[in-house]
Amino acid sequence: MSGWDPEPWRTRFQNALPGWKVVLHTETFDPAEITYAAAWKQPEGAFAGLPNLKAIFSLGAGVDHLFKDKRLPAGIPIVRVVDPDLTTRMSEYIVMHCLMALRRVRTYDGFQKQRSWTDLRDQPQASDIQVGLLGMGVLGQDAAGKLKAMGFRVAGWSRREKAVDGVTMHHGASGLEALVASSDILVAVMPLTPDTAGILNASLFAHLPKAEAIGGPVLINVGRGGLQNEADILAALDSGKLGSAVLDVFQVEPLPADSAFWLHPKVTVTPHNSAISSPPAIAAYVAGQIQVAEQGGALTNVVDPSHSY
Amino acid sequence: MSGWDPEPWRTRFQNALPGWKVVLHTETFDPAEITYAAAWKQPEGAFAGLPNLKAIFSLGAGVDHLFKDKRLPAGIPIVRVVDPDLTTRMSEYIVMHCLMALRRVRTYDGFQKQRSWTDLRDQPQASDIQVGLLGMGVLGQDAAGKLKAMGFRVAGWSRREKAVDGVTMHHGASGLEALVASSDILVAVMPLTPDTAGILNASLFAHLPKAEAIGGPVLINVGRGGLQNEADILAALDSGKLGSAVLDVFQVEPLPADSAFWLHPKVTVTPHNSAISSPPAIAAYVAGQIQVAEQGGALTNVVDPSHSY
Repeated sequence: MSGWDPEPWRTRFQNALPGWKVVLHTETFDPAEITYAAAWKQPEGAFAGLPNLKAIFSLGAGVDHLFKDKRLPAGIPIVRVVDPDLTTRMSEYIVMHCLMALRRVRTYDGFQKQRSWTDLRDQPQASDIQVGLLGMGVLGQDAAGKLKAMGFRVAGWSRREKAVDGVTMHHGASGLEALVASSDILVAVMPLTPDTAGILNASLFAHLPKAEAIGGPVLINVGRGGLQNEADILAALDSGKLGSAVLDVFQVEPLPADSAFWLHPKVTVTPHNSAISSPPAIAAYVAGQIQVAEQGGALTNVVDPSHSY
Repeated sequence: MSGWDPEPWRTRFQNALPGWKVVLHTETFDPAEITYAAAWKQPEGAFAGLPNLKAIFSLGAGVDHLFKDKRLPAGIPIVRVVDPDLTTRMSEYIVMHCLMALRRVRTYDGFQKQRSWTDLRDQPQASDIQVGLLGMGVLGQDAAGKLKAMGFRVAGWSRREKAVDGVTMHHGASGLEALVASSDILVAVMPLTPDTAGILNASLFAHLPKAEAIGGPVLINVGRGGLQNEADILAALDSGKLGSAVLDVFQVEPLPADSAFWLHPKVTVTPHNSAISSPPAIAAYVAGQIQVAEQGGALTNVVDPSHSY
């Protein structure tokens, strides 16, 4: 439970699981007593040598931090926190930035600074614009439904074949190109795995349409910084291949002060806050899953270890 | 049909109504031949002396321009264009600006300019925030549904008592105060009438809550500039009574270059483009209504002349 102040987590879990013993990793404890563990960016080997461990919970939607641990015990279910809070917030961010791209907010902001009462002609409406979601898990599907409610056309890409109501679905390596070629706005909401590392690169951007109705195609990355080739994004913005980029995640976080993204006129930078769960909601989710498992029920949102997500 | 280039309108109506004679107001015509008229900001008296006039169409959702005409003939139905296009675009704008207020886009833009990786703590989610819609006609109700889909709590105010599913409704003069007192974001989407002129003023703002979760209450005016007291808005922004304002309409349009709104750090100015129908969609709507009326059907969206909307 490093990365955040751990003491409030003890209190949260203790309140959510009365009668249970909650210990912090930094404390002295009997390894045999540990049946469940919850972590975010744990120290290497934190889960080794726990003979009675039944499950490991990630305190967020991402699990790449867990799989970086070379001493992660095999055969123990790893569970992602997918609380409705986090999903709602992610969709808020995605829908908002798609609308901002559609309605050309940054362009109108520029007119305002010039005190210029200027209306772009031929303003498209949402149904003229296709949003392509790279990643159609819980987060991608929730965003898809809300984007459709706002009128956007929505397409999605998933690694494996999947049908989603009202969404044009593509899958696999061959489907990726078709998804990108039809997307005025491309949203990366996929997990970081060995297969997806650096996927947002020049050869992907080459397939994007011109998307002239919104001033060029828009890239939104709310997944992981490791998905993106940052030099390629800058080059695509400068060449006009990309019209603009909204980046919530970066190769190095916090984004270094000398990054060209900060003051780039076509880039929106946010501090990896597209979807932050509230700690009480996370604790309640984990406690609920533990109670289900103890009563013989099945854990949900268990990570497929062969694909690291 | 002043205000826009009229010639394309002749073509649109002629294409939509084959067999009909379409004339422009500036042409010579037999007044007895005119059975329907369509206008936007017509010259005074444009509809006087047309003995066979059956209906007047406003080429937009607003009709205040028609009622300014002191020689407007009595007893002729006045029909507003409420095409789905316009409604969709208005909701895009309203939902987008509510999300931008929720997610503090302008504050994060400021952090970005400072190259500062700063995350505001205790970010509320949409369900923590109430949007109050002043005006619950077609436009207000469509926005309400989409705001609810995004998770916002929604309240509405209408002049007359009205029930809207899932929306806390208030009505009449006494209900106005209650609506405002519970609204973190206040959206004016009401028509301009003698009763609503200047309604967005200091005494209304006095009822707003603190709305600290989003940095103070937000005013969004997509109705008419005549609804707002502009000096009161500036004073409320300066005193902190209002956290920010998003204004698409103004007392004088285009907004004069010396207006304090242009460069105010808490104000977003857009050039009355929150919802612009495409002229082909308007022409199709008007033609459809005329065909319904000619077949003995009832016109829809007829303005109540006693309330000018």
